[in-house]
Amino acid sequence: MTASGRMNQQCPIPKEDYENILLAHGGGGKLTHQLIRRMFFPALGNKILEQAHDGARIPMIAGELAMTTDSFVVDPIFFPGGDIGDLAINGTVNDLVCCGAEPLYISLAFILEEGFPMDDLWKIVQSIEKSARKAKVTIVTGDTKVVERGKGDKIYINTTGIGQVVPGLEIAPENCREGDVVIINGSVGDHGIAIMSERAGMTFEPGIRSDTAPLNRMMLDVFRNQPDIHLMRDPTRGGLASSLNEICQSSGMSIKLFEDQIEVSESVRGACEIMGFDPLYIANEGKILVILPCEHSEQVLDIMRSHDTGRGSRIIGHVTKNHGGVLHMETIIGSTRIIDMISGEQLPRIC
Amino acid sequence: MTASGRMNQQCPIPKEDYENILLAHGGGGKLTHQLIRRMFFPALGNKILEQAHDGARIPMIAGELAMTTDSFVVDPIFFPGGDIGDLAINGTVNDLVCCGAEPLYISLAFILEEGFPMDDLWKIVQSIEKSARKAKVTIVTGDTKVVERGKGDKIYINTTGIGQVVPGLEIAPENCREGDVVIINGSVGDHGIAIMSERAGMTFEPGIRSDTAPLNRMMLDVFRNQPDIHLMRDPTRGGLASSLNEICQSSGMSIKLFEDQIEVSESVRGACEIMGFDPLYIANEGKILVILPCEHSEQVLDIMRSHDTGRGSRIIGHVTKNHGGVLHMETIIGSTRIIDMISGEQLPRIC
Repeated sequence: MTASGRMNQQCPIPKEDYENILLAHGGGGKLTHQLIRRMFFPALGNKILEQAHDGARIPMIAGELAMTTDSFVVDPIFFPGGDIGDLAINGTVNDLVCCGAEPLYISLAFILEEGFPMDDLWKIVQSIEKSARKAKVTIVTGDTKVVERGKGDKIYINTTGIGQVVPGLEIAPENCREGDVVIINGSVGDHGIAIMSERAGMTFEPGIRSDTAPLNRMMLDVFRNQPDIHLMRDPTRGGLASSLNEICQSSGMSIKLFEDQIEVSESVRGACEIMGFDPLYIANEGKILVILPCEHSEQVLDIMRSHDTGRGSRIIGHVTKNHGGVLHMETIIGSTRIIDMISGEQLPRIC
Repeated sequence: MTASGRMNQQCPIPKEDYENILLAHGGGGKLTHQLIRRMFFPALGNKILEQAHDGARIPMIAGELAMTTDSFVVDPIFFPGGDIGDLAINGTVNDLVCCGAEPLYISLAFILEEGFPMDDLWKIVQSIEKSARKAKVTIVTGDTKVVERGKGDKIYINTTGIGQVVPGLEIAPENCREGDVVIINGSVGDHGIAIMSERAGMTFEPGIRSDTAPLNRMMLDVFRNQPDIHLMRDPTRGGLASSLNEICQSSGMSIKLFEDQIEVSESVRGACEIMGFDPLYIANEGKILVILPCEHSEQVLDIMRSHDTGRGSRIIGHVTKNHGGVLHMETIIGSTRIIDMISGEQLPRIC
């Protein structure tokens, strides 16, 4: 079956059979096998997945590897711009990219709550297929568990990815140097605010959509043309402020941001004002922070801007030695304020 | 700090600070970092984990890889013979072994329920450290999410593992041949019945303990000395009967078991009678089914029996061509019965 032929089909397990997930779908018996054979294999199948071992056998990867894991517990599971399925693929793809790796293989583990609608599972599986195809990663092995009603929340997904580190890349906090620039590929806060406004039942005009997207195509283009990158981070949970604070802590360097260079959409800004959030601390799911020597910045910006996911790329700050490992920001009115790491929970279950 | 020096210490996050897990421990901010720096790194730390990237960079693995994933949702989380922590390590280690691989690297992702006692998390982290050390696998990357009270159940753990396939091993259902023998390394049903009796508050004499154990040391010894193994499976969820049924389905061969050769402890047999279970369908967490040519069976049995995890190894059946892909058993009284795949959920949340 062609990839596009797989999509938008009726759920392969009809309502007459099983309208909702039962505990037995996670029991390892007939219903687990039905779910695998009738839904997962037809949608996600490939030669490696269909080996149907207790795991997957994968051809040798000639080079250093990267490995990353994330569990996705986002609430709601469907939101403007995406769902828990593409979030799970894109999140793991982008973490591998931040390690300087080309994402290759992904494992997929579901924890389903008893009673979860089979149709919703099918929508999510289709979304996983679509985003894996877009990011050119192969789902090679999986697992399905079911917990009783009230012991989960619809669906949790773990994706773990492995990739091949691009030769010549040396990515590490200690590589950050005074004068390095900090690039981000667009506006901040869209994902977190899309989730929060959906949860609160609020709408904003123009509508706020999650920025969830795979960034590997854009960044592999950068790596191939300019491997002299010092560090990357995707500013997800905790947002831009937490990611840059982590970098300051690990590198011992300070980072100075320019408020007037940080793009926040009008809707996100408005929503943040109403809900009392700071967009710097809001999760993004299609953004990457790239720290590199200033002399390569124009070249890298050109490459990033040539990709759909990088049209809004710009320099938002630079690395300094002063202040001893502190993130600070020159505000629009010209003052400087310290941007601390978030201490409490601002937005639970955002990814 | 030496490995043994890490164990049985006081929880590194004292009650005065945080007695229980808060939502903020999964928020990606200060409390998440405290958990990582004060508990996870000191207990589980190694050079790869402490890179503290968005993922781990791992040296090249020269050869074919294996990858496997499992989420553990066992209830209760502490049980006779083990806990959810060692189960999560051993389960993933054993799945890699069944792919014919030497387990190397493991990722570790927690989904914690708000209010989960910090002391219990510490016990589980110590148990993970101990079992990873025993199985000689390295925990290279991790993730922590927290969900609201009533949206989880104490703790769920995903472990994903990668290993190196042992050169020369050709493991696949289609390799099974008429006359091949089926070996198991001991008694069946111990894990599932340990969980069920704990859940039901029943005790049996002698006590029933989970058989959770890593099988890589024993099986690597087999692989090195006799690589002509046709197939392996660890009979976890769904037990011996489900694993062997899967093999019959994938290979198109039948398997004949001999009831009088299948070891079931007196306590497990008694518990099964009282609770109405069939030990053939009960999960094991330290057992492996090995299918191989008859002529190697004595050699392989000798090797397996020389390991603690294989003292009870014996031949319990063989592969036949008759009956067209059916699992059947010659009973103690001499009749033959078909052992079908389990259809409903016999034992939910057993692993």
